[in-house]
Amino acid sequence: MTAMPATTVGQDVHFITFATRDLDAARRFYTGGLGWEPLLDVADEIVFFQVAPGTVLGFFEASRFAQDLGSDDRPPVSGVTLAHNVGDRDAVSDVVAAMVAGGGTVRVAPQEGAFGGVFHAIVEDPNGVVWEVAHNPGWYVDPQGRVSLDGP
Amino acid sequence: MTAMPATTVGQDVHFITFATRDLDAARRFYTGGLGWEPLLDVADEIVFFQVAPGTVLGFFEASRFAQDLGSDDRPPVSGVTLAHNVGDRDAVSDVVAAMVAGGGTVRVAPQEGAFGGVFHAIVEDPNGVVWEVAHNPGWYVDPQGRVSLDGP
Repeated sequence: MTAMPATTVGQDVHFITFATRDLDAARRFYTGGLGWEPLLDVADEIVFFQVAPGTVLGFFEASRFAQDLGSDDRPPVSGVTLAHNVGDRDAVSDVVAAMVAGGGTVRVAPQEGAFGGVFHAIVEDPNGVVWEVAHNPGWYVDPQGRVSLDGP
Repeated sequence: MTAMPATTVGQDVHFITFATRDLDAARRFYTGGLGWEPLLDVADEIVFFQVAPGTVLGFFEASRFAQDLGSDDRPPVSGVTLAHNVGDRDAVSDVVAAMVAGGGTVRVAPQEGAFGGVFHAIVEDPNGVVWEVAHNPGWYVDPQGRVSLDGP
C-alpha cells in the first residue's frame, strides 16, 4: 500500500447496476409491479430508475454488463441486497404483495429480522436481485436527507 | 401473475448491502482510502456509510449477511457494480489512485467506455465490490436532486 493521496473521494454512489438476464421481466417487475417510472429505457440494453436524489438504479442486459467490464461471462447476482423501508408492519406485507404480483419470489415471509431490530421480508426480483422490505422503527431521514438509525 | 394491487411502492432504495468477507479491509478502503465517514460501525458485524440523501451503503460481515437471508453460505459479490461520477477525466485517475492506495485493484484502467459515452475506469474494492469511476459529460443533477443523463 502506498501513502494515502491527498484526494478524497466524494461520499456518493451515483449508479447501482445489476447484470440482468431477463430485461423484460425486470421492466414488468419495476414498472408494472412496483409502479416505478423509468429515467431511461433502451430496448435490449438497459432500464434506469432514479431511486434517491442523485442516484440511479440500472438493470443492464447481462451480456452487455459483462462486456462493459471486459469479460465474457454473464454473472449471476450474488452477495448484495437492496432495502426499501416502510412506515409500519402492514406496509411490509403490502409491498411484498406488489412484488409478488410483479413476478417476484418470496424468500423470507414477513417476520422479525435477526439483525437491526427490523420487521422484514425478503423477496427476489425475477433476475435474482434480493430486496429486503422492512419496517425499522429507528429509521429516520431529516429534511436535509441525513439518515439516522436511532430515530430523530 | 395476479391482478396488480392498488399499492404502489415508493421509488426509493434505502440500503445497498454487500456480503463482506474482510470487514477490516472494507474499513481501510472506505475510511482510509476514500476518506469516508461511517454512519455506524459495529465491530465484526457491519459498517454503514450514507451515500445519497436517504440512502445508506452497508458492508455486512459475510456469515451474518448469509444468516440474515436464512442461508449458510457466504456468497461472493457478483453481477453488480456501483458507480461514482466525477467532473473531468483527470479526476477519474485521481479517484482510481485513492482506491488503489486504499487496497483496491484496477480491473480496467481509465479509458473510453463501451457504453454511455463515458470515460471510465473499473476498480474492485478488497472484497470484490466493483466500482466504475466515470466522467460522463451528460450526467447532471438539478438542485432538487433529479438526475438527467443528457445534461441540463
